[in-house]
Amino acid sequence: MRPLQSLSLKFDGQKLLVIDQQQLPQQEVWLDGTDPEKMIGYIKSLQVRGAPMIGVAAALALSCYLQRGANEKQFREMAQRLREARPTAVNLMHAIDQILLAFDNSKGAIEAVAKRAEQIFNDDEALCDRIANHGASLVKDGEKILTHCNTGGLATAGVGTAIGIIRRAHEQQKSLHVYVDETRPLLQGGKLTAWEMGKLNIPYTLICDNMAGMLMAQGKISMILVGSDRIAANGDFANKVGTYSLAVLAKHHNIPFYVAAPMTTVDPKCLSGAHIPIEERVATEVRGAKGAFGQVVWAPAAAPVYNPSFDVTPANLVTGWVLDTGILNQQQIARGALCGQ
Amino acid sequence: MRPLQSLSLKFDGQKLLVIDQQQLPQQEVWLDGTDPEKMIGYIKSLQVRGAPMIGVAAALALSCYLQRGANEKQFREMAQRLREARPTAVNLMHAIDQILLAFDNSKGAIEAVAKRAEQIFNDDEALCDRIANHGASLVKDGEKILTHCNTGGLATAGVGTAIGIIRRAHEQQKSLHVYVDETRPLLQGGKLTAWEMGKLNIPYTLICDNMAGMLMAQGKISMILVGSDRIAANGDFANKVGTYSLAVLAKHHNIPFYVAAPMTTVDPKCLSGAHIPIEERVATEVRGAKGAFGQVVWAPAAAPVYNPSFDVTPANLVTGWVLDTGILNQQQIARGALCGQ
Repeated sequence: MRPLQSLSLKFDGQKLLVIDQQQLPQQEVWLDGTDPEKMIGYIKSLQVRGAPMIGVAAALALSCYLQRGANEKQFREMAQRLREARPTAVNLMHAIDQILLAFDNSKGAIEAVAKRAEQIFNDDEALCDRIANHGASLVKDGEKILTHCNTGGLATAGVGTAIGIIRRAHEQQKSLHVYVDETRPLLQGGKLTAWEMGKLNIPYTLICDNMAGMLMAQGKISMILVGSDRIAANGDFANKVGTYSLAVLAKHHNIPFYVAAPMTTVDPKCLSGAHIPIEERVATEVRGAKGAFGQVVWAPAAAPVYNPSFDVTPANLVTGWVLDTGILNQQQIARGALCGQ
Repeated sequence: MRPLQSLSLKFDGQKLLVIDQQQLPQQEVWLDGTDPEKMIGYIKSLQVRGAPMIGVAAALALSCYLQRGANEKQFREMAQRLREARPTAVNLMHAIDQILLAFDNSKGAIEAVAKRAEQIFNDDEALCDRIANHGASLVKDGEKILTHCNTGGLATAGVGTAIGIIRRAHEQQKSLHVYVDETRPLLQGGKLTAWEMGKLNIPYTLICDNMAGMLMAQGKISMILVGSDRIAANGDFANKVGTYSLAVLAKHHNIPFYVAAPMTTVDPKCLSGAHIPIEERVATEVRGAKGAFGQVVWAPAAAPVYNPSFDVTPANLVTGWVLDTGILNQQQIARGALCGQ
C-alpha cells in the first residue's frame, strides 16, 4: 500500500499515528493509534476529532487490530466499542460498517480489511476535493465568511469540508476574510481553525461565539459556512453546538448559510433532526478549559452545567447543502433528494 | 458617616476596599482602592466592574483623593482620567459629574464631596431595590430565566439589576431556574454570576454562550433578563457583547426579553444605539482566559482578534425596560419616555 498522510494522520501500513488535537496549536504531538483501545480514548477525549477523521482513524485502527492477531470475537467487539465512541457522528458508523462488510465478504482476510480501511481514507480525500470544488463556486471575490468549529485538514483526510471550500476559493485567488468562532467549550475554532488559517495564509479574525451576531448586524459577514456530523433525510442537520444560533442569526440578517459535508454524513434512516441523538459531555469542559497548558477551572468547582456537544439546525434555515455530489437547495431537499441514499 | 458595605465594596470613611473580581470565585481578595490611580487600573483590568459599581467606586476614590490632599488641578485631572477608564459605561460619567458638581457648589469642601460620594452609593442601593421590585412582578412561578454577564451584588451597591430581579422573585418564594451564560471572553457569568447564584441558593445551570439558542428551541427558556451599560433616548441599549444575539434569538423563539437598569443608565443626549461608543479591548482576552489560576493562552500566539466589549440591541427587539421608575414598553419608549431625563 502507499503511505497515507493527512494533516492529522500518518499510516505506513503498520504503524498508525494521529496528531493530538488537544495540544495544538502550541505543540505538535503525534500519538500511536495502532491500538484501537487507545484510539477509543483519543476519540472520546477529542484528541482525534472531526466527523470524517474519526471514521478514517477508527477504520485504520480496527484494521491494525486484525493485522496484529485479534480473533473474530475480539474484532467484532472492538468494532462495536469504536462505533459507540462518539454517538452523534454518522461517518464513524459508516466506516465501521464498511470494515465489517469487508471482513464478512472476505471471511476475515487481513488484506481485504486493510484495503478497505485504506479506501476509506482515499474516499474521504476525494470527497473533500469534490465538496471544495462545488462550494468554491459559491464564494465571491471579497467574501467575508464566518465559520464555526474546525472542518479542515485536521478533521478530514483531505482539505476539509467548510474549510476545504475556503481553501479552494483562496487557491482560486479570490480575496477572502474569514471570521473564526472560537467554539466553546472545546475551542476547536480558537485553537485549530485559527492555526489552519495561519498555515494556509488565509486572512482571518478570531472572535468569541457571542460576537457573531454583532458582526452580522455591522455587515461584516457575507456568508456562513459550517460542517455537519449528521444530516437527516429532511435536511435538518446536527453540528457543533452554536451552529443553530448562527443559522437563526443568519436568517435575521439575510445572510446565506451553507452546510458542507460528504453524502456519507447523510443518514436517510433518520427522518428529521428530532431523531438525531445529541451527545452530552462532562461538566468540567464548561467549568474551564483544557489545552497544551493543562487544565484550568474558572467556574465554582461544583457549578451545575449543561454541555450538549451538538445542536440541530432545521432545514428551513439552510440556504444550501454543499455535498460531494453537488449543491442542493431547499426545494430539492423537500422533494426528497437525500432520501434515496 | 455610616460605613458602606456591599458584596464587592467596603468603605469606613477613610479606607476604600474593593473585591478583586478577577480572582473570584476561587479567591476573595480585597484591594485597596483609596488611591484613585490604582482604581483606574482596577477598572481597566475589570478587577472592579459592573456599570453601577464602577460609578460608585470611582466617586468614592475621587472623594478619598480630595480628603488626602489633592489640589483642585490634580482633582479635576483625576476626575477626567477616571471618567475615561471605561468609555461605554454612562453611570461612570454621571457619578463623576455629580462629584464635580458637589466640588463646584461647595467651593471644594472635602465634607460636601464625601457626602455626595456616599449618596451615590446609597442611591444605587435604593435604585436596585426599586428595579428588583418592579421586575419581580414580571416573573411567574416556574420561570426559566436566561441571563448574561453579571448584574448582581458584585456589579452594583445593592442587589443588582437583572440579578436583583431574580433575587427578589426568589425571596418571594417563586420557583425559578436560572441559565447562566458564561459570557466570553471575560467569563463574568461563569465566574461571578454562577458564584452569586450559589451564594443566594438559587438553582442554576451554567452554559456556554453558544448554547442559548438550542435551549430556546427546546423550550427551556421562558424569559431573558439582562442589564445595560447605556440606554439611548430611543430605547436602544449597549450591554456586554452577546446580548444582541440573545435578543435576536428571543425574537425568533417568541421569548420575552427584558433589560433592567437604573434611569441613570439612560443617556438622553445619545439619540440611538448608533451613537453609543463601543469599547474594544485587548486581543489577549480572546486568545485565552484569565482567572485565579493566572493567564492561559490556547489560540495561536499572534492570532488576529476582534474584541468589542459591548454590543447594541435595538429597541424593537426589547419586550420591556425595567427601570427604577417602573417598567416601560415599546409604545412608551417610542412616545419619548426616555427623552426628558
